[in-house]
Amino acid sequence: MRNVSVIGIGETKMGSYPEKTLDAMILEAGEKAIADAGIEKSLIEAVYMGNFNGSQLCNQSQVGALACEALGLSDVPSIRVEAACASGGLAFRQAYIAVAAGLYKCVLVGGVEKMTHCAGDFVTQAIASATKYDEEAARGVTFPAAFALIATRYMYTYKMPREHLASVPVQSHANALLNPDAQMHKEINIEKAINSQMIAFPLTLYDCSLVTDGAAFAVICAQDFIPSEVRKQNRVIDIAGSGHGGDYLTLSGKSQITSFNATKQAAKDAYAMANVKARDISLAEVHDCFSITQVINTEDLGFFEAGTGGLAAFEGRTAIGNTNGVAINTSGGLKSKGHPIGATGISQIYEAVTQLRYEAGQRQVKNANIALTQNLGGTAATCAIHIFKRMGE
Amino acid sequence: MRNVSVIGIGETKMGSYPEKTLDAMILEAGEKAIADAGIEKSLIEAVYMGNFNGSQLCNQSQVGALACEALGLSDVPSIRVEAACASGGLAFRQAYIAVAAGLYKCVLVGGVEKMTHCAGDFVTQAIASATKYDEEAARGVTFPAAFALIATRYMYTYKMPREHLASVPVQSHANALLNPDAQMHKEINIEKAINSQMIAFPLTLYDCSLVTDGAAFAVICAQDFIPSEVRKQNRVIDIAGSGHGGDYLTLSGKSQITSFNATKQAAKDAYAMANVKARDISLAEVHDCFSITQVINTEDLGFFEAGTGGLAAFEGRTAIGNTNGVAINTSGGLKSKGHPIGATGISQIYEAVTQLRYEAGQRQVKNANIALTQNLGGTAATCAIHIFKRMGE
Repeated sequence: MRNVSVIGIGETKMGSYPEKTLDAMILEAGEKAIADAGIEKSLIEAVYMGNFNGSQLCNQSQVGALACEALGLSDVPSIRVEAACASGGLAFRQAYIAVAAGLYKCVLVGGVEKMTHCAGDFVTQAIASATKYDEEAARGVTFPAAFALIATRYMYTYKMPREHLASVPVQSHANALLNPDAQMHKEINIEKAINSQMIAFPLTLYDCSLVTDGAAFAVICAQDFIPSEVRKQNRVIDIAGSGHGGDYLTLSGKSQITSFNATKQAAKDAYAMANVKARDISLAEVHDCFSITQVINTEDLGFFEAGTGGLAAFEGRTAIGNTNGVAINTSGGLKSKGHPIGATGISQIYEAVTQLRYEAGQRQVKNANIALTQNLGGTAATCAIHIFKRMGE
Repeated sequence: MRNVSVIGIGETKMGSYPEKTLDAMILEAGEKAIADAGIEKSLIEAVYMGNFNGSQLCNQSQVGALACEALGLSDVPSIRVEAACASGGLAFRQAYIAVAAGLYKCVLVGGVEKMTHCAGDFVTQAIASATKYDEEAARGVTFPAAFALIATRYMYTYKMPREHLASVPVQSHANALLNPDAQMHKEINIEKAINSQMIAFPLTLYDCSLVTDGAAFAVICAQDFIPSEVRKQNRVIDIAGSGHGGDYLTLSGKSQITSFNATKQAAKDAYAMANVKARDISLAEVHDCFSITQVINTEDLGFFEAGTGGLAAFEGRTAIGNTNGVAINTSGGLKSKGHPIGATGISQIYEAVTQLRYEAGQRQVKNANIALTQNLGGTAATCAIHIFKRMGE
């Protein structure tokens, strides 16, 4: 397989946009990515889109062709990929495979979701279609319930104090204050997080990610075909590793729930492909659909020992500027930047590329040279991991 | 890219199964394909699933992980691909690319849809999510309406007699009588087809494909890794070509509607990759969502001149056993075998492989050595084409 790089990125500000259609958000973020790449549209040979549930939320399937029409990409083949919250990360992986295989030189890959126009209980139900619906959601195991069970088991197993779990959203909120694209700009503290509204014990409001409208895009290109004027700008970021892991859909089908097999498998493959280890990672965008998920993810990715992910967050070893850990969710994460489900995996890549280009402003991780994105789907049923490096490093 | 073959196939009988869940159909067809391949399940490294709209029709997203659980494929990475009615064909293409690229040696690819348990008008609306919903379906342009407009324009442009159009379903019904997996076993004639219930002028009931529950699977394998005991059975079929074409989602956005750009582009790429021409094809499963679509498809694929596809069907040059054309939809097609949307693309491949193995019984095309499948999504917004050859030919 040949080497592939990200040459352009774009995203909408994340938020609540009842007036914006799916195609309006696609147009905004897609045009930004193409302009950022500095290429002619005619170079784009295919479009890969991540979208979780446009059909239930917006009566809109076939979001690949929708994107082509919105962006004026006539006669360009398109596809939509869905794996619940990992839709964006897996769309990116399929696009990467197609370019690496030699089928295309330059591909546009994006994600989009529109959610905030629907009533809250309908959104919860639409998201719950990513459980095994008849056995789980229909019997009350929506996602907050599923991850509450996971959190309960984890806290029992590792005796994690509630304060450690609460320190996760406190940091996400602090990071989001530095990200102009973030949906939520609001400082919180541990006491406020713990005492917020109970959602599903032990998870309170601030343990749960946001409902968000948004889109994010990337332009990827085979390294041998990067236009010289694009290469000269020194903003090209290489895709060094890609991994895809899986597990059963149901919570009860999994061999363990205090660690996720899908993440471990994807991480193993991505690290091997990139020829790096966890300690080499400068920053990681990990899938914090719930605070407990971030704790487990940072352990499964090898950043911290099992049972110590909460402590690491509590001690600031996941913060921007820390010197004895790794910067986690510098963007604010799903919790505070926002979680437009199908776009999330691409928005994570947007942050990774921005950091590796040293364009992250106040939230910049100094000397960042390797970044990782981890995008988890369903109750840890699917995981897409990518590792990025500065060009030539 | 390395060479890849189909080593196993399986499908459910197509029909109406209100009592069967998605996972029950996945289990039935998936196990058949794995047994047909004669391999251990442990060889399967990834699962690619085509599913159009499980979320609206069954409250079920993330059908990739659902399939892994149903089939007992623990810790196997999975993905769902959606491009309306082309979901199955595109899932197959992504699986093919991943194996050809060298990422996996052996992959299970399937499709599934469950539709008949829903009320007819709800099914029409769920399918209509594959139009540009706010501009088309919400204003009355559901799929029967869209293809009625296409048929009207085509018949005006080419002066095609109504009898020619009606001869398409007459042949599909005749072929389905020879296919035990077909949903409909019923002989019709041209008079009956023309005088059936009006759906959307000029399309009557028999011009429209069926609403169907069903699943279909294939096991694909890199040629260098086909187990010797599998190879010995002489039932391995090579994937010789793959093409993916696209066009705008809307009817009004297309530069033409009496011919489909998406098909022409996919056909050009697939023929080039397989190094064959239209006249070399022994049989083709083409996407007859409506009778007019089959007429146009057989022209876009290069089997007949523009404007003569209906005449060719009328004259029997698409029938099994004809000597001056090509056998079309020997399975009975979407019209009579059935159209379980996300499974259709894989079920087309099931028929192609069955024919090339000389296992098609009464509907066998003599000396079949090259087969083509064409799977169209939405109002011709996406097209996946594959070409298959007998091993070593």
